[in-house]
Amino acid sequence: MFENAETPILVLDRERLLANAERMQQRAKALGITLRPHFKTSKSVNVAEIATAGRRSTLTVSTLKEAEALAEAGYDDLLYAVGITPNKFARVADIQARTGKQVILCVDSIEMARAVVAALPQAPVMIEVDCGEHRGGIASRAPEMIDIARALGEQFRGIMTHAGHSYTTDQIDRVKEIADAEASAACEATELLRAEGISVDTVSIGSTPTVLYADNLEGITELRAGIYLFWDLAQFGRGMCALDDIAMSVLTTVIGHNRSAGVLTLDAGALAMSKDIGAQTFLPDAGYGWLCNADTMEPTGLRIDVVHQEHGTVKVRNEEDFERHPIGSTVRVLPNHACLTAAGGYGCYHVTNGEIWPRVDGW
Amino acid sequence: MFENAETPILVLDRERLLANAERMQQRAKALGITLRPHFKTSKSVNVAEIATAGRRSTLTVSTLKEAEALAEAGYDDLLYAVGITPNKFARVADIQARTGKQVILCVDSIEMARAVVAALPQAPVMIEVDCGEHRGGIASRAPEMIDIARALGEQFRGIMTHAGHSYTTDQIDRVKEIADAEASAACEATELLRAEGISVDTVSIGSTPTVLYADNLEGITELRAGIYLFWDLAQFGRGMCALDDIAMSVLTTVIGHNRSAGVLTLDAGALAMSKDIGAQTFLPDAGYGWLCNADTMEPTGLRIDVVHQEHGTVKVRNEEDFERHPIGSTVRVLPNHACLTAAGGYGCYHVTNGEIWPRVDGW
Repeated sequence: MFENAETPILVLDRERLLANAERMQQRAKALGITLRPHFKTSKSVNVAEIATAGRRSTLTVSTLKEAEALAEAGYDDLLYAVGITPNKFARVADIQARTGKQVILCVDSIEMARAVVAALPQAPVMIEVDCGEHRGGIASRAPEMIDIARALGEQFRGIMTHAGHSYTTDQIDRVKEIADAEASAACEATELLRAEGISVDTVSIGSTPTVLYADNLEGITELRAGIYLFWDLAQFGRGMCALDDIAMSVLTTVIGHNRSAGVLTLDAGALAMSKDIGAQTFLPDAGYGWLCNADTMEPTGLRIDVVHQEHGTVKVRNEEDFERHPIGSTVRVLPNHACLTAAGGYGCYHVTNGEIWPRVDGW
Repeated sequence: MFENAETPILVLDRERLLANAERMQQRAKALGITLRPHFKTSKSVNVAEIATAGRRSTLTVSTLKEAEALAEAGYDDLLYAVGITPNKFARVADIQARTGKQVILCVDSIEMARAVVAALPQAPVMIEVDCGEHRGGIASRAPEMIDIARALGEQFRGIMTHAGHSYTTDQIDRVKEIADAEASAACEATELLRAEGISVDTVSIGSTPTVLYADNLEGITELRAGIYLFWDLAQFGRGMCALDDIAMSVLTTVIGHNRSAGVLTLDAGALAMSKDIGAQTFLPDAGYGWLCNADTMEPTGLRIDVVHQEHGTVKVRNEEDFERHPIGSTVRVLPNHACLTAAGGYGCYHVTNGEIWPRVDGW
């Protein structure tokens, strides 16, 4: 497959992707909660179609460019899950005016709530709560929550939070605790507002680990997750997926044998793989990705040890590794962090059914 | 400047760029050695014009897409400084056929030398030598050097090596040692071939630190370097440049104040900044980049401490940092590693003279 392809290219295993998407759809269905898949992992409208089971609505995005691409492709109900500021208002207005599709915004301050109401009176708005990751959001019982919701008035849609710190552990018990805290924070904020007579339509939480392992999601109306579509070594290292669930890999060519140094070089370096080393926390030998046989996807036992901009170097164990990997031969490398590897500049996926699926990179 | 710009954007300070380019041109002129600037840092034809002082030839590239863009823009004599393999031959042939411009290739094995001669009989070819970085290349006195050069026949152009390990030190004496080893390796290989009656036209070395600090470059005909055009915190931390030499920065917006966690959030995260933490080796507080005043470029004393895909979080020192950086205000962040930050998906530079300069990302 992909013989003579000019490498590096991003390979997407369609069967694995379909299975991953189906599994999470079943989980959400069993819970009776709406799934709002995150587009930031794939940045591909083709993947969005699979992730939404053809529904073509209710996605999370990380950039307005993603929202624009989805809206132009006919997708509706798009949550831009990054705090909005006035320098992005014109783009939001333009997307909504041109496509008629809805972009939901997020705020966590009274200033931005007022600014949105003044400039974008049609935009639904979520209030972001910090459930312990300490990124965006306000505390779940912060009294200013009420002021923000009141300032938003009819535009107020609901509460959202994201337990990104669920990625810091490989202990399922700890994931469950974080999932509890995530749901509790969202529910506390919701109760605070409802006690004031403010209607809260949507109560949205999620990260892939917490969505998978949460025991109690009472009061939650929406689940957000993204990496489950592709998986990667970081998630494998945390025990969140099996190795053969990982749907995305980088096809790369052996470009040199440096026998005196005991390394072989690949044409996949820092841009092709990314410099994310997060997988090494729970998978110390992750390196910058695991080399697999390009056809069978069987791991070779080798990894990318060092990356330069366009070179990856791989320490061999013995002379036979050179024989197994002649110059000009290819391997597929499982990435540490699929979201970042995919954003390395490829522009598209080479799908195992022969199709090319474009990506929406940049801003 | 750049008021109301939709962030993040990549800002390029034209005056600093011009001064950086000029300084290296003067260095090469004083040495009497040809400068072959590396295109991989900027990936911008506009920058290439400045780097070559309008000569429009003699550049180094890290991808064939870069070579293609330069050749299409009329640039000639382009060294693709990554080992070539047969799956890239068609692209090389196409570039040469369509544009008539010369792409010089690199090999470090007899197999690839023979393959190039069979498939691309017009292509000039360099032999890569490993001078201690242990990436591509063969040993400078390896007897197979002679076989490779003979296999290349008339296509053999010269010897190249790259002391990328000059980036592992902040000691000028050590840089000088590495520069000596780099030049020596290239000269040894050259002498080995000349003793066999093989003509060696080009003897090419370089990395920004070794080009700047080499004491003895006798026998060297060509210098390659790239990062000197932009500089970054990694180079500043090694004492290679001053802080106000750094020509590239990321304009980003404060999107939230998380007062209970003591952080402010920016819309510049892992994709906008890259996850390269190389600058931290010699500049332990580099974080993922230093925040500067967007107008004066005065450092604020704050840094990006944590990156998520689209969020950067910054620990504040006191309440006043929130007042100094209201939600919606902007800062410019000096990058750890300019080459990787610039490749984050921006697609272009916003230059301080108001121009937009496109980039050639991907493969």
